[in-house]
Amino acid sequence: MESEFIAWLRRRLPQHPRLRLGPGDDAAVLRLGDQPECVVTTDLLTDGVDFLIEEHSPRRIGRKALAVNLSDLAAMAAQPVAVLIALALPRIGGLSLAQELYEGLLPLAEEHQVIIAGGDTNVWDGPLVISITAIGKLTAHGPLVRGGAKPGDQIIVTGQFGGSILGHQFDFQPRIDEALLLHSQYQLHAGMDVSDGLSLDLSRLAIESNCGAVIEESLVPIAKAAVHLATSLDDGATPLEHALGDGEDFELLLAVPPNDAQRLLTDQPLDIPVTRIGEFIETPGLWRLLSSGERQELVPRGFQH
Amino acid sequence: MESEFIAWLRRRLPQHPRLRLGPGDDAAVLRLGDQPECVVTTDLLTDGVDFLIEEHSPRRIGRKALAVNLSDLAAMAAQPVAVLIALALPRIGGLSLAQELYEGLLPLAEEHQVIIAGGDTNVWDGPLVISITAIGKLTAHGPLVRGGAKPGDQIIVTGQFGGSILGHQFDFQPRIDEALLLHSQYQLHAGMDVSDGLSLDLSRLAIESNCGAVIEESLVPIAKAAVHLATSLDDGATPLEHALGDGEDFELLLAVPPNDAQRLLTDQPLDIPVTRIGEFIETPGLWRLLSSGERQELVPRGFQH
Repeated sequence: MESEFIAWLRRRLPQHPRLRLGPGDDAAVLRLGDQPECVVTTDLLTDGVDFLIEEHSPRRIGRKALAVNLSDLAAMAAQPVAVLIALALPRIGGLSLAQELYEGLLPLAEEHQVIIAGGDTNVWDGPLVISITAIGKLTAHGPLVRGGAKPGDQIIVTGQFGGSILGHQFDFQPRIDEALLLHSQYQLHAGMDVSDGLSLDLSRLAIESNCGAVIEESLVPIAKAAVHLATSLDDGATPLEHALGDGEDFELLLAVPPNDAQRLLTDQPLDIPVTRIGEFIETPGLWRLLSSGERQELVPRGFQH
Repeated sequence: MESEFIAWLRRRLPQHPRLRLGPGDDAAVLRLGDQPECVVTTDLLTDGVDFLIEEHSPRRIGRKALAVNLSDLAAMAAQPVAVLIALALPRIGGLSLAQELYEGLLPLAEEHQVIIAGGDTNVWDGPLVISITAIGKLTAHGPLVRGGAKPGDQIIVTGQFGGSILGHQFDFQPRIDEALLLHSQYQLHAGMDVSDGLSLDLSRLAIESNCGAVIEESLVPIAKAAVHLATSLDDGATPLEHALGDGEDFELLLAVPPNDAQRLLTDQPLDIPVTRIGEFIETPGLWRLLSSGERQELVPRGFQH
């Protein structure tokens, strides 16, 4: 529903000179004064969709709510500054729940020097809702956007994919430092964080860039959790299918021109692996490379909002 | 619960040099670059507390969600710049509901040149939740805060009070232009918007300012709706009691030094009345002035979160 709604909203909203990037990217870029530019994003998490209050501890839920917002700032290569936290709490035990949510998110906030600038704490008869807005600032290298990939750019990812439901969906590290480092030392044409599934998010980035993408499936870095899930679940999905479609990996997906991609892959400048999984092409669509060298269309899979 | 939680949060959160004003005021003041300073606030509205989806039209609900946030910027005498809108929508009819909410808030956004910078649109099994974060900027006169009232300052309010449940709670105008005009032309020691009830919010402003407040009840401007409510409801409350305790008036409550107060009351520079209802005193607490000239303690009433 969200993509349909965003399409409607893009048509409905007036253009504004202060808004450099609006709805549709991971975050918006806003001109507040003359400079610097401000990056803003909001993510709302609900019980039953993003977490299960009966199953997951409030501290992990609180941490996740902050981490997904910081991941959106990382997706834009923005430095986090502050967050605002709005809560709708169940009537019973609301105060201690709120405190536990904060105890879960505060260490992550401190780690990235994020200020808790404000909030709104409500009690109601419904389930838990956490809505966080994150504010960041751009570096001198400007924003990393979804729409800049060019045919010939290499598809580069950080980390591994798949099986995040086994724990990574809560414990992931938003790739802020990694995004800032890569954006400052290599030419990145486009980027985003993978939140809804590698193949689905890649297809979105390709669409925003008016190009296509070919995945070399044998190169996709598969998380141990994806292997574990494939063997323990009886859903017939392979580890690769989990890696391509599971979502909530919160890794970086980048379009890097060939020379910089080569340098980046050789340097391996991060504490986590950086991997090439394919390349962007002129022909629209998402494709997989067959061993024969031919391309076969790949159906994007992931979490559709 | 919220006041208890904010007290806990204020102790728990580290101080930060970029945060000029944190949790506890109507909005936070954040240093993003060297200048200008950025004012941020967030308000989350839930079905059953802030509106009733069965009873109120989605357009009015959407407008209200934006208006309460703009009222918080007005409370700080900040110029609105942008908002981010996060929604948790019921599964059935979510898309058209989202569109109606936006159709309700967009005219108000346009009226105040507010940019819709981004959002997050979710579907879930719970009732409607709207979480908005508003970003504004300070004028050269700086922020209007709760903590600056001094004994001898006059208590000045805009508009009338009480009975907002009859419609004003949805149709009110956030007092942005009024706050900016008053803040630029008169010395205002402190201010806030009245959202939870005139007497309760006045007692909060007095506490933040380390002083007390005396209300001259005969001066309180009572809305027609408060009179209507007092005569139609069988709850034994007088129009004055509705005016002092109803909440959701979203008028400005100001502490103005005597000379400027006199000038302001004579000038009447707004399209709506500006009224003196009492003064701030050294003795802590909230009081009403008796005809004998003595003071009697007044119990603050309003909406306790």
